[in-house]
Amino acid sequence: MNRKLKMGMIGGGKNAFIGAVHRIAANIDGLIELHCGAFSSNAEISKASGKDLFLPEDKCYSSYEEMIKTESNLPAGKRMDFVSIVTPNFAHFAPAMMALEYGFNVLIDKPITLTLDEAKKLQQMVKETGLILCLTHTYSGYPMVKQARKMVADRQFGKIRKVMVEYPQGWLSTLSEKDDNKQAAWRTDPSKSGISGCMGDIGTHAAQLAEYISGLKISKICADINIVVEGRQLDDDGNVLLKFDNGANGILVASQIAAGEENALKIKVYGEKGSLEWHQMEPNTLLVKWLDAPTQIYRAGGGYLDPIAAFNTRTPGGHPEGYLEAFANLYKNFALTLSAKLEGREATPEMLDFPGVDDGVRGMTFIENVIASGKSDQKWLDFKI
Amino acid sequence: MNRKLKMGMIGGGKNAFIGAVHRIAANIDGLIELHCGAFSSNAEISKASGKDLFLPEDKCYSSYEEMIKTESNLPAGKRMDFVSIVTPNFAHFAPAMMALEYGFNVLIDKPITLTLDEAKKLQQMVKETGLILCLTHTYSGYPMVKQARKMVADRQFGKIRKVMVEYPQGWLSTLSEKDDNKQAAWRTDPSKSGISGCMGDIGTHAAQLAEYISGLKISKICADINIVVEGRQLDDDGNVLLKFDNGANGILVASQIAAGEENALKIKVYGEKGSLEWHQMEPNTLLVKWLDAPTQIYRAGGGYLDPIAAFNTRTPGGHPEGYLEAFANLYKNFALTLSAKLEGREATPEMLDFPGVDDGVRGMTFIENVIASGKSDQKWLDFKI
Amino acid sequence: MNRKLKMGMIGGGKNAFIGAVHRIAANIDGLIELHCGAFSSNAEISKASGKDLFLPEDKCYSSYEEMIKTESNLPAGKRMDFVSIVTPNFAHFAPAMMALEYGFNVLIDKPITLTLDEAKKLQQMVKETGLILCLTHTYSGYPMVKQARKMVADRQFGKIRKVMVEYPQGWLSTLSEKDDNKQAAWRTDPSKSGISGCMGDIGTHAAQLAEYISGLKISKICADINIVVEGRQLDDDGNVLLKFDNGANGILVASQIAAGEENALKIKVYGEKGSLEWHQMEPNTLLVKWLDAPTQIYRAGGGYLDPIAAFNTRTPGGHPEGYLEAFANLYKNFALTLSAKLEGREATPEMLDFPGVDDGVRGMTFIENVIASGKSDQKWLDFKI
Amino acid sequence: MNRKLKMGMIGGGKNAFIGAVHRIAANIDGLIELHCGAFSSNAEISKASGKDLFLPEDKCYSSYEEMIKTESNLPAGKRMDFVSIVTPNFAHFAPAMMALEYGFNVLIDKPITLTLDEAKKLQQMVKETGLILCLTHTYSGYPMVKQARKMVADRQFGKIRKVMVEYPQGWLSTLSEKDDNKQAAWRTDPSKSGISGCMGDIGTHAAQLAEYISGLKISKICADINIVVEGRQLDDDGNVLLKFDNGANGILVASQIAAGEENALKIKVYGEKGSLEWHQMEPNTLLVKWLDAPTQIYRAGGGYLDPIAAFNTRTPGGHPEGYLEAFANLYKNFALTLSAKLEGREATPEMLDFPGVDDGVRGMTFIENVIASGKSDQKWLDFKI
Repeated sequence: MNRKLKMGMIGGGKNAFIGAVHRIAANIDGLIELHCGAFSSNAEISKASGKDLFLPEDKCYSSYEEMIKTESNLPAGKRMDFVSIVTPNFAHFAPAMMALEYGFNVLIDKPITLTLDEAKKLQQMVKETGLILCLTHTYSGYPMVKQARKMVADRQFGKIRKVMVEYPQGWLSTLSEKDDNKQAAWRTDPSKSGISGCMGDIGTHAAQLAEYISGLKISKICADINIVVEGRQLDDDGNVLLKFDNGANGILVASQIAAGEENALKIKVYGEKGSLEWHQMEPNTLLVKWLDAPTQIYRAGGGYLDPIAAFNTRTPGGHPEGYLEAFANLYKNFALTLSAKLEGREATPEMLDFPGVDDGVRGMTFIENVIASGKSDQKWLDFKI
Repeated sequence: MNRKLKMGMIGGGKNAFIGAVHRIAANIDGLIELHCGAFSSNAEISKASGKDLFLPEDKCYSSYEEMIKTESNLPAGKRMDFVSIVTPNFAHFAPAMMALEYGFNVLIDKPITLTLDEAKKLQQMVKETGLILCLTHTYSGYPMVKQARKMVADRQFGKIRKVMVEYPQGWLSTLSEKDDNKQAAWRTDPSKSGISGCMGDIGTHAAQLAEYISGLKISKICADINIVVEGRQLDDDGNVLLKFDNGANGILVASQIAAGEENALKIKVYGEKGSLEWHQMEPNTLLVKWLDAPTQIYRAGGGYLDPIAAFNTRTPGGHPEGYLEAFANLYKNFALTLSAKLEGREATPEMLDFPGVDDGVRGMTFIENVIASGKSDQKWLDFKI
Repeated sequence: MNRKLKMGMIGGGKNAFIGAVHRIAANIDGLIELHCGAFSSNAEISKASGKDLFLPEDKCYSSYEEMIKTESNLPAGKRMDFVSIVTPNFAHFAPAMMALEYGFNVLIDKPITLTLDEAKKLQQMVKETGLILCLTHTYSGYPMVKQARKMVADRQFGKIRKVMVEYPQGWLSTLSEKDDNKQAAWRTDPSKSGISGCMGDIGTHAAQLAEYISGLKISKICADINIVVEGRQLDDDGNVLLKFDNGANGILVASQIAAGEENALKIKVYGEKGSLEWHQMEPNTLLVKWLDAPTQIYRAGGGYLDPIAAFNTRTPGGHPEGYLEAFANLYKNFALTLSAKLEGREATPEMLDFPGVDDGVRGMTFIENVIASGKSDQKWLDFKI
Repeated sequence: MNRKLKMGMIGGGKNAFIGAVHRIAANIDGLIELHCGAFSSNAEISKASGKDLFLPEDKCYSSYEEMIKTESNLPAGKRMDFVSIVTPNFAHFAPAMMALEYGFNVLIDKPITLTLDEAKKLQQMVKETGLILCLTHTYSGYPMVKQARKMVADRQFGKIRKVMVEYPQGWLSTLSEKDDNKQAAWRTDPSKSGISGCMGDIGTHAAQLAEYISGLKISKICADINIVVEGRQLDDDGNVLLKFDNGANGILVASQIAAGEENALKIKVYGEKGSLEWHQMEPNTLLVKWLDAPTQIYRAGGGYLDPIAAFNTRTPGGHPEGYLEAFANLYKNFALTLSAKLEGREATPEMLDFPGVDDGVRGMTFIENVIASGKSDQKWLDFKI
């Protein structure tokens, strides 16, 4: 398939944060081109946004419905290959479902939907259509996260005993949703964000990362879920005790009222023989600790890394990559998988290493369970699926 | 009082870890001299240990009972001024009680006793005798911890909202108590250590540090207490959800099976306007974070610090002090307080800033509560005193 | 000008390192499209490389001469807007000169040419044609470097007194040019690299960064230039004493035999009142130190930064950007400047903040001077221009 | 010899910085007792200082001459065993010489004397008397420095190729010698400090550390020596190119006008196969880097370290030691060596590992050479001995 994949974007108009990130991620490797978009529910804004992105006027649609319908009538190779959905949570399900119905592959921001029920419907639809869905749990796109996962899977640390993941941010330390902060406004509004604020927004990332690296599944939780800032409608902070399916214990902290923190996702995974530590804000470093030997500093680009790390790296050691490249790895692997499919080739395991609809259902399940536990007087709740 | 204070040591014979640390801490500032000792329950070992320490033979006692009785018959200025008790937990109470009964001040390693009941008896005895008792919660002796406490007390961060304290060690990752590791053996033996292993040994440090810096009191807990290494008798790991008396939430993790970790005590305290972060393994640095301004690196020795930090520092900035100096600060402040008392002067607030018998009771209370919560199906237990 | 700029690439065929980096940098912001290329001096490889990049066959030229001539015959808006030259040093001058002669703007990797003489000719040509030339001194594209430059220019540290810049790499610690390492081979070959190896390859980056941040010009040098690995033809290591035009002193170290180092460019700039420290491998952090106040951690994305930092940043604080984004900033600013020119608008100072032909001449001057000093017995040589 | 060694201190009266450090260092291990002192050239201050240190009045001498003479008349075991000289540089030679003449061992702060000539006389006298002299180059007392030296000596990195040592401080950034800063006053006064300020005070430490770890000797230098702060009499800054006797190159930077720096001594030593990096301000960590394997974090207390590191460590891993313990290692090793001698035992190589009079001569030679080079127009000067 000697061409770039064609992307139709839903959401991500002027001033949207995550839409711009998605476009950069799609651009980086030159595998994808922006083909069309319904950038806003406001047709004017959608048109203006598309123009800024150098799209021809007829590729700037007034609504996602129009886009999906119109594009579906174009011949293969001329129509979009997939939609990228970058709207707030409440506006994920409908366009995703419609895109699948019309035969389009889907890339979608997390959490996958507003409710678990919606997520399960999408899961069913993906299964039925055989189309590809990619969910952008960015942090699993980092090469050193993949290295970590591989080392655990290779049993280099023996049985995993404990997982500590924390995700403190400080940007919701004040009631900024009342101060014309658009990002704050929708993320703290139940009608747009769902039943959870902080746990949905970043707790899901932390849970996904913990399960991704450890290869374990959370099996029980005991959650302390808090609204710290007075006047807020959704949780902005929480601490969660975890049990995993192999008997390991763990702890997950997510907070958006951790004043002075930026985006300080950190994870530590302890096994019988050693452990791992990774910090998102210095993502090219993975600390590998041992019982009786010096801690090692594994670095992105190192010749000693597993091939899965190199597959997700673009530069030699010491030329730092970051968040946008991790995001781009999701796009790249999705694109490689989609191209393989379009060309009738088998996708390799490396290509297939991106979160999908099952991760989306898992994330919604996490939200449901953690909020239920937060309200419960019972200590441990089984993690219901 | 133009002389050094005279110390009688109980425990700390050859090869004991913490005894040597106590002696260094007592030596550093030249305020205290080792006057006598009952270094072991084995009279031979006690004598030999004393000889190595250059004590005259008649100052190497066969038992603490002999030491306390004999010394109490000496005139003031010739007898010991205080005892330093550095035995395992089970051998704290009896010598402490006897020392107090005979009118000697007491310095004692933590946790203060084997049981809460013993601790309360000591508390009562201290109250009755008016003698001074110092409990060596080392970590509160660091100058940057004192700086942190002062900044919180000065309300520089507004109301405290969240406290995260973690204390991972890896040295009990294997069943080393079966491998002739003396330290491991007594610390994992209920008859010597009490009802808790990890929580008693290091969880108490973490709890004390959290309360010391934040100025808050833990009011509710929900604990997950684990024996991770098969065959062990006491907890070697635990995760605890916390509520504080001002409504703040928190988390406390203590583990001795965190393979690859040394002594990685870390604390973060979040307020409305900013936060603090301190790592014991880089103790001269205190990170001070703000909502809308760059994080600041407060450093021991800095001219901008509160006088309480300078009072507990011996060197200029960039000449790192460490664990032994923090330990020495407890001895120094205890010694200054005791000297003031002996000379009829009032001790200053700086001198009085060392943990005492109330902290000891608090620590034993923490152990009782956290173990009770670990066994309970109820989510939150009130922190009973 | 409602379209992307069209780029014609010279060099950067299959397996080339820096060509791929340039393409990513050009892609990121969606302002530039790859329009055509002469990716290799081997026509077959050029065609195959272009195909991999999804170029139509007629846009994959057999030589840069063919590309420049053919494109120059196309109408504006259909022909390439600029060439990007990513060949080894010896193959910079001829295509650059020809491109300028045919009216094309030029973006070119550093060092600008093989010799100072060539650089001066390019400088003259740029002056005569009024065309735009961008030189990819990547490290000056980082937002925190721009922040640093601004703070110095604003005299926040008073007069600058000392600059320490070091650039250690370890990748040439062995004679890898004999081991089929293509990158090593041309960089250590005088006919392809010029009179200097290490100083030309990375010393020029260090010198440019020192002058860029400090706002000073090197006025005297005293260089120790070494071939450390036996059998190598060009310098692989050097230490240089510096004097700047304001009287400040400095030191520049560049080495490619610093075994175990990745790409560890670091700079410290000391003024009367404070200083700056920046590490390329943790590029989102700028340490700002003061005489009598805590060191501050300035972070990319911080709301307290100068607007020039935000102009060169794509993500909020804590979402790390890296080398590719710094590189992309050069492309972006070049593209914005070029678009402004094509549309008859004035470029803003922010847009114009990219290295150009004068920096190229300066870099070649640095190489000439540093190699001359390395051979001289005289201590200080005036930095001749 | 079942007793502590008796120390007579010269200098170090009230408010002296380094005297207090020496006393702590002597105290820590309980091997030495303060026996007497001539703490000041002012007899009143000497008496008062001794009283504060709990010395009996007759052990507080009015002058070092009085102390040496009086003590020499006491019987062995009653008189002091050694003198500790902690005065400013200009007052090192006379008391050291006299102490040796009267048969006392000597411990002395660095640099050893005011001039090279004096140092050579001391060297001769030590040789003749067979007495022991210890010079307090503190930084070679750190366990991780000793680990580094051992790894180099064991050829773990192959031939050493390059050494980078830097020692920036900021405390003389202003003309503080005019502001009643006693430390600044004598250190910038040629009559008290000698021909060099910064290079004598801290450059000597850097040079000693470089030679100590690398096992190499500086053979040529090219120095840029500066008085940066107007009105100052001695150098406060310098950059030095180095050649070592095995052909390795190096760089040494020492500065006391590096605004915002504390005591930031750092060293990197590069060999053929790997390299070492050590920072004095985080002294318990030694980075060990390799050509093709992850960097290792060697940590004080690690079971994998060479025995020489454990011999100079008092606490388990993660219980940080610092500057005072490094200083104490010099005292300890000196004391063990002296005790062995007094008891007719052979000192072990571990005990003998402290700087002595030869290091003192070497340091004065460094000062002479570096100042001469600073004044010379010739590029490289042979390092004359």
